[in-house]
Formats: sequence, structure tokens, C-alpha cells
Amino acid sequence: MRSFIVIGQTATASADFSLDDLPGSSGRLDVLLRCVRAALLYSHGLRADVRVYLVLRGGEEAPRVVRIDGATARFIRPDERSLALLVKKTLAAANDRAADEFVEIRPGVSLARGDLERVLLDLSGAALYLLDEHAPDLRSSPFGGRHDPPGAAYFLGDHHGLDPADRSRLATLGARAVSVGPRSLHSDDVVAILSNELDRWEASAP
Amino acid sequence: MRSFIVIGQTATASADFSLDDLPGSSGRLDVLLRCVRAALLYSHGLRADVRVYLVLRGGEEAPRVVRIDGATARFIRPDERSLALLVKKTLAAANDRAADEFVEIRPGVSLARGDLERVLLDLSGAALYLLDEHAPDLRSSPFGGRHDPPGAAYFLGDHHGLDPADRSRLATLGARAVSVGPRSLHSDDVVAILSNELDRWEASAP
Repeated sequence: MRSFIVIGQTATASADFSLDDLPGSSGRLDVLLRCVRAALLYSHGLRADVRVYLVLRGGEEAPRVVRIDGATARFIRPDERSLALLVKKTLAAANDRAADEFVEIRPGVSLARGDLERVLLDLSGAALYLLDEHAPDLRSSPFGGRHDPPGAAYFLGDHHGLDPADRSRLATLGARAVSVGPRSLHSDDVVAILSNELDRWEASAP
Repeated sequence: MRSFIVIGQTATASADFSLDDLPGSSGRLDVLLRCVRAALLYSHGLRADVRVYLVLRGGEEAPRVVRIDGATARFIRPDERSLALLVKKTLAAANDRAADEFVEIRPGVSLARGDLERVLLDLSGAALYLLDEHAPDLRSSPFGGRHDPPGAAYFLGDHHGLDPADRSRLATLGARAVSVGPRSLHSDDVVAILSNELDRWEASAP
């Protein structure tokens, strides 16, 4: 199981954003939605061994976490508007719920109140990594040996990057920082490149 | 200069698609738009050394080619709807033009009538590659030595892959087929992974 956690510093936890102006009305939820596509979808398929967590820190309902589980999710489409509609319906359906646990709202799509700590509880024991453009390159770091069982979790920031407090919290838990190369890239490109590296390792594993 | 050419077998060359239903109304132009983002944008920046060609084979106005030049383009936003609007306006503005040459419609965004041959003329002498999931991995192929001056051009298919006739035409021109790893991926992920590989080479070049 691979888990990708994208922390949206401003991405809205409320359903009151406009599908016609995602960047302007959702606190840049669009950045996170593109990560969902990159993490879960490949050509004509859904990755059953991947989970994505979106940590939503914007708006009145914040903080909340949306979790999408590739093993049970259905009808995950690649285009941004479809993904936005899925998240919008998830956030709207649960407006009257105050669950601290993840509650499944649609097949494979769950919602919980909470923030980073809510995600960490759910990850229970996974090896932790955080993506940081200034960290050692994942190809040259001792990354390979640890990534597999019992599955690892990869934390990414949004267009603002990871918050210092989050970095610090993850560091106390032993998270290792890695980068994907010489450029600072969009979060979804980082997910695509990281997924490719993991695919290669799995394909070459004995 | 890196050039990415995405061939849309059904992507519309007409402006009459709906921004509210891109996948359903545009012949999957959304697939190509996501490649534009992956090719041209990095964190808070536009790649000045990259050009993207979208070969549009769907609809009554087909075939047409949209070319976006990172060196002169302005206001390229990452979200799919903004990119769709840019292409829609480009296609609409030029409805009365029948240019066989590229005509700049907006800063850095040009349009021409034509198909693959129109692109090949514009590439004039670039080394050609085509992305193919069954081809040798770019990390193990003799890919590295050829990629730089005078710039290379990378051909990708859409969700249907590359057409046999296009493969055959590119092969007669000496194009080399490469893959990006063990999985069949979305076209935009292929662009992200390929761009990362090229970034690494450029960063390590003497």
C-alpha cells in the first residue's frame, strides 16, 4: 500500500466552491485534485494499492481530511472538474456529520474531521517520507530499502510547500525527506515521478 | 529546446466544445490539456525552452495544430478549465483563417491547418523520439547521448495511444521509441517523467 498525503494550506474543507472557478473559489483545491489523478490513475486503470489523503485547511469547516482508497473507489475520472465534483459532493453530504473517524461517503471516498494527526493515526506504522525539493535525491538516498512493507506514506505540500510545523512534526516521527530531482515541480508531477520510481522498484523486486 | 507533440485522434479542432463537459464534448481534449501543463509549467514558473504541439484530429475543422511556445507564452495557468478556455479562444479566433503556416493568435499560442506533416516541417531537423510503453526504457536505452542540441522532439499519443500510420511515418524518419517504465501511464504523467529525466541530464551535464 502506498499512501500519498497532500496538505492543502488553503484548500477548502467546505462544499461552497464553484466548479467554474476552482483556482479562485476553492483555495487552490485544484492543486490537490491533480494529485489525486496522478496518484490513483494509470492508463485505463485505477491503482488498487494506493490511498490518497487530502488535508483541507481552508474555509469554515476546516480542518477535514478526504481519503480516497484505490481498492474500493469507483468512477474516479481523470478530469479536474469530475474530481472536483466528487470532492464537493463528499464535503456537502457530510455537512451534518462531525465524525472524528473516517466515514465512507461514497464508494472508497471517506471524510473525517481533523488534520495531520488524523492522517497519522490512520497510517498506523507506515514508513514516512516527505517530499522536499532541497532534500537528497530519491535515486541516491537510502530510499529503496525501506519503501515497501508495510507500505510507506509520502507527504507533499501544495503550491506553498509544506508548513514548517508539519515538517517538524513529521521529523519527530522519523520521516525522511527526499526530492525528485533538480527542479521545483508541481505537486502532481512529483506524485507522477515518485509513482514511476516505485513502479520500477516493484517491477525489479525479486 | 524540447518539443512535445501530443496527437489527439479525436480531440476537437473546433471551438464548439463545452468547458463544463470537456471529456464528453471535446473528443478528450482534456487529455491533451493536461500534457500542456506537465510540459510547460513547473513550480511558479514557465519553461522557456519548451514547445508543445497539440495535433487535433476531431471535428469539422480538423486537422489543425495548436502550438504553445514557453518562451513567449503568457498567462498559462495550470488548471484544466483555464487551459481549455485558452485553446477554445485560439480555435474560435481563427475560424476565418485557413493558414497553412503557424499564425500567432495570442502571445506564444499559434495555430495552423495541417496534421503531423505540418509539425514535422516546423521541427526542422530535431532528433525524433516516440513514447511507446513496449519500447526500451529510456534509462537503459542510448537515449541520453542524442537528446540535446539541436533539441529533440517527443511524440506521444492520447488515451488511445499512437496510431500505426503515425508510428510508421515517424519510424521512416528515424524516430526512436522509448518507454518510461513498467506501467502504461497517462500521457501527462509520461510528459512529467520524461521532463524529469531531461532535467536531470541537463543538471548533470558538464
